[in-house]
Amino acid sequence: MIVEMVRGASQEQVDAVVERARSYGCEVQLNVGTDKVVAAILGSDTGSLSTDVFAVLPGVQSVTRVMVPYKLASREFRPQQTVVRIGDVAFGGPHFAVVAGPCSIESHEQLLATARHVRHAGATVLRGGAFKPRTSPFSFQGLGIEGVHLLEEVRRETGLPVVSEITNPAYLDAMVDHVDALQIGTRNMQNYSLLSAVGQSGKPCILKRGLAATVTEWLQAADYLLAAGGDQVILCERGIRTFETSTRFTLDIAAIGVVKRASHLPVIVDPSHAAGHYALVPTLARAAVAAGADGLLIEVHPDPVNALSDGLQSLTFNDFERLMGEVGALARVMGRPLAPVGARAESAG
Amino acid sequence: MIVEMVRGASQEQVDAVVERARSYGCEVQLNVGTDKVVAAILGSDTGSLSTDVFAVLPGVQSVTRVMVPYKLASREFRPQQTVVRIGDVAFGGPHFAVVAGPCSIESHEQLLATARHVRHAGATVLRGGAFKPRTSPFSFQGLGIEGVHLLEEVRRETGLPVVSEITNPAYLDAMVDHVDALQIGTRNMQNYSLLSAVGQSGKPCILKRGLAATVTEWLQAADYLLAAGGDQVILCERGIRTFETSTRFTLDIAAIGVVKRASHLPVIVDPSHAAGHYALVPTLARAAVAAGADGLLIEVHPDPVNALSDGLQSLTFNDFERLMGEVGALARVMGRPLAPVGARAESAG
Amino acid sequence: MIVEMVRGASQEQVDAVVERARSYGCEVQLNVGTDKVVAAILGSDTGSLSTDVFAVLPGVQSVTRVMVPYKLASREFRPQQTVVRIGDVAFGGPHFAVVAGPCSIESHEQLLATARHVRHAGATVLRGGAFKPRTSPFSFQGLGIEGVHLLEEVRRETGLPVVSEITNPAYLDAMVDHVDALQIGTRNMQNYSLLSAVGQSGKPCILKRGLAATVTEWLQAADYLLAAGGDQVILCERGIRTFETSTRFTLDIAAIGVVKRASHLPVIVDPSHAAGHYALVPTLARAAVAAGADGLLIEVHPDPVNALSDGLQSLTFNDFERLMGEVGALARVMGRPLAPVGARAESAG
Amino acid sequence: MIVEMVRGASQEQVDAVVERARSYGCEVQLNVGTDKVVAAILGSDTGSLSTDVFAVLPGVQSVTRVMVPYKLASREFRPQQTVVRIGDVAFGGPHFAVVAGPCSIESHEQLLATARHVRHAGATVLRGGAFKPRTSPFSFQGLGIEGVHLLEEVRRETGLPVVSEITNPAYLDAMVDHVDALQIGTRNMQNYSLLSAVGQSGKPCILKRGLAATVTEWLQAADYLLAAGGDQVILCERGIRTFETSTRFTLDIAAIGVVKRASHLPVIVDPSHAAGHYALVPTLARAAVAAGADGLLIEVHPDPVNALSDGLQSLTFNDFERLMGEVGALARVMGRPLAPVGARAESAG
Repeated sequence: MIVEMVRGASQEQVDAVVERARSYGCEVQLNVGTDKVVAAILGSDTGSLSTDVFAVLPGVQSVTRVMVPYKLASREFRPQQTVVRIGDVAFGGPHFAVVAGPCSIESHEQLLATARHVRHAGATVLRGGAFKPRTSPFSFQGLGIEGVHLLEEVRRETGLPVVSEITNPAYLDAMVDHVDALQIGTRNMQNYSLLSAVGQSGKPCILKRGLAATVTEWLQAADYLLAAGGDQVILCERGIRTFETSTRFTLDIAAIGVVKRASHLPVIVDPSHAAGHYALVPTLARAAVAAGADGLLIEVHPDPVNALSDGLQSLTFNDFERLMGEVGALARVMGRPLAPVGARAESAG
Repeated sequence: MIVEMVRGASQEQVDAVVERARSYGCEVQLNVGTDKVVAAILGSDTGSLSTDVFAVLPGVQSVTRVMVPYKLASREFRPQQTVVRIGDVAFGGPHFAVVAGPCSIESHEQLLATARHVRHAGATVLRGGAFKPRTSPFSFQGLGIEGVHLLEEVRRETGLPVVSEITNPAYLDAMVDHVDALQIGTRNMQNYSLLSAVGQSGKPCILKRGLAATVTEWLQAADYLLAAGGDQVILCERGIRTFETSTRFTLDIAAIGVVKRASHLPVIVDPSHAAGHYALVPTLARAAVAAGADGLLIEVHPDPVNALSDGLQSLTFNDFERLMGEVGALARVMGRPLAPVGARAESAG
Repeated sequence: MIVEMVRGASQEQVDAVVERARSYGCEVQLNVGTDKVVAAILGSDTGSLSTDVFAVLPGVQSVTRVMVPYKLASREFRPQQTVVRIGDVAFGGPHFAVVAGPCSIESHEQLLATARHVRHAGATVLRGGAFKPRTSPFSFQGLGIEGVHLLEEVRRETGLPVVSEITNPAYLDAMVDHVDALQIGTRNMQNYSLLSAVGQSGKPCILKRGLAATVTEWLQAADYLLAAGGDQVILCERGIRTFETSTRFTLDIAAIGVVKRASHLPVIVDPSHAAGHYALVPTLARAAVAAGADGLLIEVHPDPVNALSDGLQSLTFNDFERLMGEVGALARVMGRPLAPVGARAESAG
Repeated sequence: MIVEMVRGASQEQVDAVVERARSYGCEVQLNVGTDKVVAAILGSDTGSLSTDVFAVLPGVQSVTRVMVPYKLASREFRPQQTVVRIGDVAFGGPHFAVVAGPCSIESHEQLLATARHVRHAGATVLRGGAFKPRTSPFSFQGLGIEGVHLLEEVRRETGLPVVSEITNPAYLDAMVDHVDALQIGTRNMQNYSLLSAVGQSGKPCILKRGLAATVTEWLQAADYLLAAGGDQVILCERGIRTFETSTRFTLDIAAIGVVKRASHLPVIVDPSHAAGHYALVPTLARAAVAAGADGLLIEVHPDPVNALSDGLQSLTFNDFERLMGEVGALARVMGRPLAPVGARAESAG
């Protein structure tokens, strides 16, 4: 933490900064320039301090953070790459992994057909929404618990591990034993009650980036999960909100590289929500592979024209199969071929 | 809803659009131009339809919403201004109302001193945070239930009605009988479980705008509260996330005018979170009054330098008093003077 | 400038940082923490150094600017408020000043009628566009030189000083003797050839903020004008680009307060371009007065319905007159009443 | 164009809309719903009309554009892909093309060494900045005309066609005969004087996207070039301004797909300016190839640590060579291998 005093700050003001720093167990080194005093607040834990605790002191002009404000998610804390497993599928390891399935679970038939197809095309995890956060209270809100049970049934039938979004800590008990991983959606990235509850469950978790969250805030949200005891966090970039409206959100493709440098956690990309339109999903999915992501999360539906939610951004079976061919070829060039379908999956469905 | 077909769309494709529109109970009028067919989908309820249900059909080039996608919060639904009461204080009526208090409740002494001071300076509602959503899991998270009880105690001692933020539907029972209004914070604006629970409680609610929410999405979130049965919703603009970093968020002052035209709900402004720095709070507070807001929500602390949270954006007692002088003068020019301290408040404290 | 080395940086790497700093005439103080070396680069001119010159060195983790990167526009450089004069009208002095007129000059009749009306309503400077930067090459591009001459004619007839936008350094000769001030538009804020040319002319200049410019970049652009010799720069906030679409741009009302603290230059607000719609112009105009702006720049047209450009955001004579009543009342509360019409203006027109 | 009237609009107000539409040569079809009148304004040229000409009329609630507002750059205007040539190198054809070179031209030696290296690694066009637009007036501004001459000299010595940025219409004469293509930078994307001048020159042009420009505005800027007579326009995505600060700008990778659908012009990506840091350039460059871009524009410098500008985002020779290996492999998977070095280049240098 670097604290710049205003020109002409008094000795008393400088002393107050020093004293406060020491009260947090930090060392202080004063740099007395010709113009101004600049104090360097040093110590291994300054990342967890708010800049405000110094900025609020009289005579302080600016405070600048040097250490990142997240800890458990950082590569400084854990240098080696974390590998997260959803069922028998590894994220962050030598293979590229694809999660696919419908936005909303609508019926057993819809879910099973989709599961079989995406497995055939090379996906190794099934996603399906049971509790749907919708912008309007008048839209379809998902099948709820019934959807979770359908997901479990299809897992049994196909051998694919399953993931579903949780939107309320109160649903944890009803979900935790029936899915292989939980997803925290973009609108709940800073729902700290939810983060803590999911972290405490120890369940693998896909943490979507908030639509207005910086990478730093995203990693702080991961810290909530990790601090609660979870160590199985997969980050998922899904587009941020910008002024551009030709896509629903702007996929921040550079975030893949930024996260890889800053964190040990695996990171995947959801091209469907970023694009908002099926015709742009392949562009983003291919870019994600080449950027070095660990996997993809893609919406697929047997009949997008009649889907109960997000049909516009869902791929048909044919489009998904074609895309998986491209993804597979690019993943090989990147040295991380598609994950093979797991042994368990082979024997089932 | 206006559906534009691609050039050369087939009759079959146009028919599919017409059929889908009718399946939702809408009328359709086709406009056959020299270049393209454009279909107008008419009906009083097209606002609740997603544009995607048409965009996903083959041969459709674009779909444009004409009706707004919120309903209960709109002025078309209810033309006359809604007046919301927190305790005996009206928002949206002939007076300008100020809510003030500390970001976090820290102790009975801190809360009572603040309450007495802000009441003296002209505020008529006390705010105080008990459950604090913090970006880092390592920061102070609030006193929780104990904070709620302190709030109730100070309400009894001062006569000021009180408001506090709720961050989890599970806390509702513990809060609902002890506060006069609930606040939903910016990071929970699209936490639909929370919105529904608070709406069902029938409690007055201050709904902060999400930091990446459009005005339209904000009013859709209000629809969640209203649809659940609540009719006591106060909107609160608190700054949106933009590229500018000289303030913590960018106060969208125009949103006051936009909301006033679009909705019947009262709208107030939180200059503290937008500014992020006490020196800029008066600028924003004064602008809010002149823009036509119904009130303000301001953070005040007896000793910001030692506050446990948000000290940098909190006003001292002196600064708050000076600001209230300016606010009062501007409010009179705007024809909506400061709300007088209520009769109940007069007799107490 | 604060340079943070990576953990385990070599002595050689630290030495390279020190050497480079000294090569720019700066002092260096090393802070050797338990974890990392942090170097403070001190000196009165570090604001003009790019952070990149250190960030590019091996072993450097981050570089943080302490000094602001603008100089001539800063309050550190010149503590007292600069007062800029357009004709006999002062900006930044004890009076609030209003510039008004049509977006595009269309005819002598249109311009004269507008000038007379806005002067009557309390404006003291006339604006009118001759060279119009338009998003589409197929839109009306302004009357060009003829417009400049109409402006000069109406100045003579009404006594109002005039301002017009310059879009190309090549137009300088044709404009400089015929207007009282030049305006640099938002899309040219970083057109450095234009900034230098206008700065060298010594003409008073209204510098609009770029629609994606931070306040810092805006003040750097002002530095271009000031460095070229101009000292008569008025800053004009006109809205930035954000994700919100209910207004054309998002007026950054806090920028008024930020600029007032950071710079000695006067700052005015253009509510017309920010709002994009006449119905929202008064909201923004009033907010600007209360936020502490030094003036306003407002589009007014005798017949907005038939204006050749920007009719939607132009006020009618009646609406402008009503708004000026509100502006005047708020300005008085702020202690800076409307500028009286100048003596020269009194005697003319 | 779809014009929605307010509820209860009068017949006279509807008539005014119809009349105005007809005055622009458009057909009108009225849709009289139960609630409101909606008018569809049809005709092949409504894209060039501003929505404002209707929005400003009394009784109009909203106006929605159906046709895109650009024309010459659109695929509707020219369905087949345009191939642009810089020297003998084609953009938009069967090969992927890479433009590389230093941000600023510093010396003959620096430029020649870079040219030879990038040609060796597979680049086929040399870029080098002579006139540099810099954020601060106190930064290095480029060698100017001398730089242009160095560029021409190195072109002769290596056979590589060359491109350089133009920042002022007045420089056109000095540049046009000495370079193979002109570049218009991000800060000048809406400098319409410059666009018109460059368009009239007929020179191939790389048009960078403005940092706050939507894809639509970018294509409107291309229309300026095309309307002035140029037909050799290459679009270049280089990152947009968002709230995220971990990269200098946010590369809008989806824009590649959006442009490919909307326009016939080739589109390339500049990963250097988007990233702002050399370590992230490969991530973005690879993503661009996989997204389907037609080429790349990359900054390379023999000694980035001592570069006079943008050293932090410049690749070393080694890093560039490694990246070109990855780019080549990905380009082959995409079915568009790297452009072979042209015959002219072979025989020279």
